[in-house]
Amino acid sequence: MGQYVLVHGAWHTGKELEAVAATIKAAGHGVFTPTIRGNRPEDPKTIGLDEAIQSIVDYLSDNILSDVILVGHSYGGMIITGVADRVPDRIRRLVYCNAFVPNNGECLSDMLPPHYVELFDSIAAQRGDGSVVLPFPIWREAFMNDADLDTAKRAYSVLNPHSIKTLKDRISLKANPGEMNMAKSYVNCTEDISLPHLYSWHPKLSQKLGLFRLIQVPGSHELCFSNPSRLALALMDAGRD
Amino acid sequence: MGQYVLVHGAWHTGKELEAVAATIKAAGHGVFTPTIRGNRPEDPKTIGLDEAIQSIVDYLSDNILSDVILVGHSYGGMIITGVADRVPDRIRRLVYCNAFVPNNGECLSDMLPPHYVELFDSIAAQRGDGSVVLPFPIWREAFMNDADLDTAKRAYSVLNPHSIKTLKDRISLKANPGEMNMAKSYVNCTEDISLPHLYSWHPKLSQKLGLFRLIQVPGSHELCFSNPSRLALALMDAGRD
Amino acid sequence: MGQYVLVHGAWHTGKELEAVAATIKAAGHGVFTPTIRGNRPEDPKTIGLDEAIQSIVDYLSDNILSDVILVGHSYGGMIITGVADRVPDRIRRLVYCNAFVPNNGECLSDMLPPHYVELFDSIAAQRGDGSVVLPFPIWREAFMNDADLDTAKRAYSVLNPHSIKTLKDRISLKANPGEMNMAKSYVNCTEDISLPHLYSWHPKLSQKLGLFRLIQVPGSHELCFSNPSRLALALMDAGRD
Repeated sequence: MGQYVLVHGAWHTGKELEAVAATIKAAGHGVFTPTIRGNRPEDPKTIGLDEAIQSIVDYLSDNILSDVILVGHSYGGMIITGVADRVPDRIRRLVYCNAFVPNNGECLSDMLPPHYVELFDSIAAQRGDGSVVLPFPIWREAFMNDADLDTAKRAYSVLNPHSIKTLKDRISLKANPGEMNMAKSYVNCTEDISLPHLYSWHPKLSQKLGLFRLIQVPGSHELCFSNPSRLALALMDAGRD
Repeated sequence: MGQYVLVHGAWHTGKELEAVAATIKAAGHGVFTPTIRGNRPEDPKTIGLDEAIQSIVDYLSDNILSDVILVGHSYGGMIITGVADRVPDRIRRLVYCNAFVPNNGECLSDMLPPHYVELFDSIAAQRGDGSVVLPFPIWREAFMNDADLDTAKRAYSVLNPHSIKTLKDRISLKANPGEMNMAKSYVNCTEDISLPHLYSWHPKLSQKLGLFRLIQVPGSHELCFSNPSRLALALMDAGRD
Repeated sequence: MGQYVLVHGAWHTGKELEAVAATIKAAGHGVFTPTIRGNRPEDPKTIGLDEAIQSIVDYLSDNILSDVILVGHSYGGMIITGVADRVPDRIRRLVYCNAFVPNNGECLSDMLPPHYVELFDSIAAQRGDGSVVLPFPIWREAFMNDADLDTAKRAYSVLNPHSIKTLKDRISLKANPGEMNMAKSYVNCTEDISLPHLYSWHPKLSQKLGLFRLIQVPGSHELCFSNPSRLALALMDAGRD
């Protein structure tokens, strides 16, 4: 069976992926849900991308994990791309789940529409501690459009502020994802409108992977909350050989 | 519970949305299915867009409706946009269902491919009473592609001629839909090819809404005939808070 | 009931469509699964497009088939377009199933991304008998992304080399498909990434049909292997009047 390592997105921690992990575990796989450095509630919010990536590299090493199916959700795509660049020998397959796909020298903000960049800058300026949060109306309409209001509120209540530096730091890669000689999958939630069409997860970002396997599943950007077991099944279709 | 007002498309009347309304009613909501002025079989076919919009403004006022979830299908998108501009205080949320989204000064024909505009002009010229009808082969292949032939024929038989003036009149709005400070949803039927790809309902028209909630559902442009209860469920996912 | 003639894609023969045919037959229709000249394992791999098309024209004539629902999968779209041009009177409806749609003077390679053309040229140069094969990693990730590894391997094992000449010969048509006065459908498998987005089956190729009926079904390019009965149901929705 496989070894899944699930890397969460911005504002999340590994805890929010435990319901997804449970379904994967029940199918007989190993599953790990680390929290990226900078995303633990007590972490300083001035962490940069390099340190964030290194924290997952260290996690794989500390837990002696190899032959890993490395899954990244959203911001987690920045992380798994960096990890794959640093320790390719530990990885069996990369699985991007409505995740950012950076080329060398890109930052996450390069893949955002200008109105998000401006909004995040203005929120971070107000907060003043290096962190950014997501306004609830955007979360409810564009991130959790497949859920009822209670689920959207409950999920929102567990989010925590995210270091804006990780969105602006440019990633340093020896090879772009499209040239990485590694199995790659992209899971696309078909109702995900957290990015607008011109900046779409699929095909705009997915196509940067070169040869990849596409798995689609109905759901919003936050299917991990609205239907974790459905997401888990999609991740397993994406992660199998 | 919510108060739904369902505004039909061109060639339709409120009657064709009664099956949809029944499912929404069964879930405990209030539902209304007015017919736009100009679309009642006995109406003069020279009605313009302004009068058409006003007829639904009057309907809300006559029935003392407020806190309304205002749903527009197809041409109904012109109407609900105009109504929202005139009486925003009566509306809780706008729901566009594969509906036109006009900015100030646009007419419906601006959102049609040239071959439809030419076709409609030529049909209206032949009819000579100000109205346009849809040829059956287009209806069957591009509007009801998810239905069997009998259903397509039965539905076609209840259509009535539509005032071409309402497709050419430019809408007058104080604010474009993207700037309206109001909750907005877009329901996209995923097999709707009544508009070709370059003029797509979603994302081409939906993105004019700014922040909106996307709900997708399998079906053609005329899901109200081919599967009214499935459409009703999608409208309720779109209409809830 | 209808008369279905299913025309396979490159690397396939009619045999691989028998499971699809069984479901269509069980619904009461007539079904035929010819093998295109050039695709029988024993055929010379120097066959051109003209001869390939003619073999299906001859098949219809030899079996005295008329009022046919002519289905083409992938490369089969080249064939059914040519057949429709030569013997339109035998055909009730054309059904393209993630199939190429050529205009007069186009070859299949014109609809491929450059990296596929280069890959196929280099493989054909190595083989030296006029044929091209598909590397397994591409097959597994981009053609059978909806299947498990065993199914992908089993399906791969029955493929046979395909004449590269048929991909480069330009089709000669009296009218482009968009101008053919004939009922047309396009079946789109929604997870088909065998062609990348800029060269998409739908809407990039489908829109060349002019007025057509769209049917969508979840699945990869090789749904005939991964779920033949689901494909059969979609073909019947596409093929009915």
